[in-house]
Amino acid sequence: MKQSQLFYKSFKEAPSDEISQNAILLTRAGFIDKLGAGIYSFLPLGLRSLNKIENIIRQEMDAVGGQEILMPALHPKENWQQTGRWENFDALFRLKGPEDRDYALGATHEEIVVPLAKGLISSYKDLPLYLFQIQTKFRKEARAKSGLLRTREFRMKDLYSFHADQDDLDAYYEKAKEAYFKIYERCGLDEKTYLTLASGGTFSKYSHEFQTLAESGEDIIYICQNCDLAINHEIKQEHLICPECGGNEFKKEKAIEVGNIFKLGNKYSDPFGLKFKDKEGNENTVIMGCYGIGPTRILGTIAEISHDERGLIWPAEVSPFSIHLLVLGEGEKTRKNAEELYEKLIAEGADVLYDDRDISAGQKLVEADLIGIPTRIVVSEKTLAKKSAEIKNRTEEKTELVPISSIFDFLP
Amino acid sequence: MKQSQLFYKSFKEAPSDEISQNAILLTRAGFIDKLGAGIYSFLPLGLRSLNKIENIIRQEMDAVGGQEILMPALHPKENWQQTGRWENFDALFRLKGPEDRDYALGATHEEIVVPLAKGLISSYKDLPLYLFQIQTKFRKEARAKSGLLRTREFRMKDLYSFHADQDDLDAYYEKAKEAYFKIYERCGLDEKTYLTLASGGTFSKYSHEFQTLAESGEDIIYICQNCDLAINHEIKQEHLICPECGGNEFKKEKAIEVGNIFKLGNKYSDPFGLKFKDKEGNENTVIMGCYGIGPTRILGTIAEISHDERGLIWPAEVSPFSIHLLVLGEGEKTRKNAEELYEKLIAEGADVLYDDRDISAGQKLVEADLIGIPTRIVVSEKTLAKKSAEIKNRTEEKTELVPISSIFDFLP
Repeated sequence: MKQSQLFYKSFKEAPSDEISQNAILLTRAGFIDKLGAGIYSFLPLGLRSLNKIENIIRQEMDAVGGQEILMPALHPKENWQQTGRWENFDALFRLKGPEDRDYALGATHEEIVVPLAKGLISSYKDLPLYLFQIQTKFRKEARAKSGLLRTREFRMKDLYSFHADQDDLDAYYEKAKEAYFKIYERCGLDEKTYLTLASGGTFSKYSHEFQTLAESGEDIIYICQNCDLAINHEIKQEHLICPECGGNEFKKEKAIEVGNIFKLGNKYSDPFGLKFKDKEGNENTVIMGCYGIGPTRILGTIAEISHDERGLIWPAEVSPFSIHLLVLGEGEKTRKNAEELYEKLIAEGADVLYDDRDISAGQKLVEADLIGIPTRIVVSEKTLAKKSAEIKNRTEEKTELVPISSIFDFLP
Repeated sequence: MKQSQLFYKSFKEAPSDEISQNAILLTRAGFIDKLGAGIYSFLPLGLRSLNKIENIIRQEMDAVGGQEILMPALHPKENWQQTGRWENFDALFRLKGPEDRDYALGATHEEIVVPLAKGLISSYKDLPLYLFQIQTKFRKEARAKSGLLRTREFRMKDLYSFHADQDDLDAYYEKAKEAYFKIYERCGLDEKTYLTLASGGTFSKYSHEFQTLAESGEDIIYICQNCDLAINHEIKQEHLICPECGGNEFKKEKAIEVGNIFKLGNKYSDPFGLKFKDKEGNENTVIMGCYGIGPTRILGTIAEISHDERGLIWPAEVSPFSIHLLVLGEGEKTRKNAEELYEKLIAEGADVLYDDRDISAGQKLVEADLIGIPTRIVVSEKTLAKKSAEIKNRTEEKTELVPISSIFDFLP
């Protein structure tokens, strides 16, 4: 895409009403726009990265048998009363509809997916079943000062698994863990992300969170120095022993929760009477798991941990574009050569942002660093004199002059 | 995909609480599930068709220069007060957030996109600009008995165009009309869809709707028998003369509104002070247009007009799958051959639903007609005896026996 056509504006200064690094950088680089506390619009650059994250998640959910559906955000009160959460889920937005009916805005979807699954599950032959959606969720967050990390409206992937017994849930739960680590790897978060024990609930002693180390993280975790399992501060005891390896040395870190998975057991299937007939014809309660990850929070976390003093640094798979082509200088011949290179890259299927604007070389270079696309190509009168272009990786200082005729050999 | 793995259940009877054909058929065929009045979940088959419709719309908006963004559904009251619509937009869902703040749920996005654009538009060089999103919208519909045609939560593509002057808006408006007809053509609705004059507002005498003829339509239109322009009943005068061609013969028809486009002029730019500096440095108000189309309503309209007594009939580009492969009979060899054909089709990139379930041939055939995928391939002991498979188009009665070895020659 040509940058002159892009709905984009960068800002030198941080917005006066933001304190988090992710909101400051994503706003300055033209990825997001704040509408109100905890409410953001995604501009073309931000939406491109968000879509890439969502597609990674979709692929990894497909790979573990997930079937994508789309449930509503408007939930009848009756569904939430059935589990007792209409009264005690504090963060639920409640509103009135036609005929004075009460609705909740979807903050999570157990109350919707369970009756939906009940309509289709009757026999052991219908199990296991894995349903997921990628959808906008709403929560009445009192504090909303962390940019995309804690918002009142956010994107969420929620997967729900339905099983005939505990063993089947346990086995799938391990597969889901692996799928989650693949997602973090593809989003460039794996090196700093730890599987973390958190509080469980009535059915299982623990749930698992995925926590990404960050100075700005709101959570505190203790990482076992022997086996790398982390323990959330919430459940830390005085004399901590690692439940995984028995280790007793821990490192305390601040972290951002980037996902959580939960063995629900019969917690939500019971209130809705979600049962199935086993091979012998006996009725049993369906056993459930749930698996959440927030694409908008992932985007915010990447911005939070992957930047330098000049701007954002996108991991390859989630960058809004793969290549940032800049033409420096106003000469007609330079322009023409840059344009030809752009067309050539596009023709080969490359994902290119082309800075063709009539602004100074300095501003182009500064904005390219701020946006943070991994590979930068510069074409100028100087490089063209050698029939070359200059390639630079966002994270390195060195540039490389390469012949335009063989430029594809030098691209990642 | 193998049908044995699909989250899917068909119903012989119409649901007791639905009266519209689209809701009855889409529910019976396992595309949607009703959560409450005017609120539906999209099951895997329904979501596949919905995604195909949304991608068609996205492509046609890209083709007329649209840039995709994603705006929030939670809107601060202040934005809606600015235009006076907080008080007089009846269908607006209103709710309370943290700190007793008032929010509206997005029913349309002029109140959000105008201040957003204001942050980026300052000069004539920033114009024209075309922004669109494909997003979930909410309206407090009193009547919600028409299935996907009138819901309280629905998917919507809304494009907003920003221009320096009226001429530029007028030219783009014509391009948008053409883009809309391309969308209807690809969704199989073009033959029954008419450009229709509707009431305009303060800025322009008329707006334009796109109306698809349907017995169940809630709108009444008068089609000029000379030039095919239609007039919405709302604006019909006693002695109607076609404003396009002067014709005076009209045919009265019932229709479903499947899109509308509107010259907004300065209606929303003025309240937010959306101005730009022209070449001479003078400040002018930005002139706007808006262009709406509802993917979920399109899905409902297709179901409404494209079915027979046996079930749905999907136009090729929006069918959940392109090919429905059925294996009839239990024989191991038959199964093996069908499975091989399935793998072969998948390997060639075909979009196949494979009915591999252990149910009767009769039930498979009935459900295939109910689901309505355009091309059906049957493999049975009988066809395999001739090293063949039987191909049938959903809308034709005749079947064709074709050699499996050259099956690709017979597929659309």
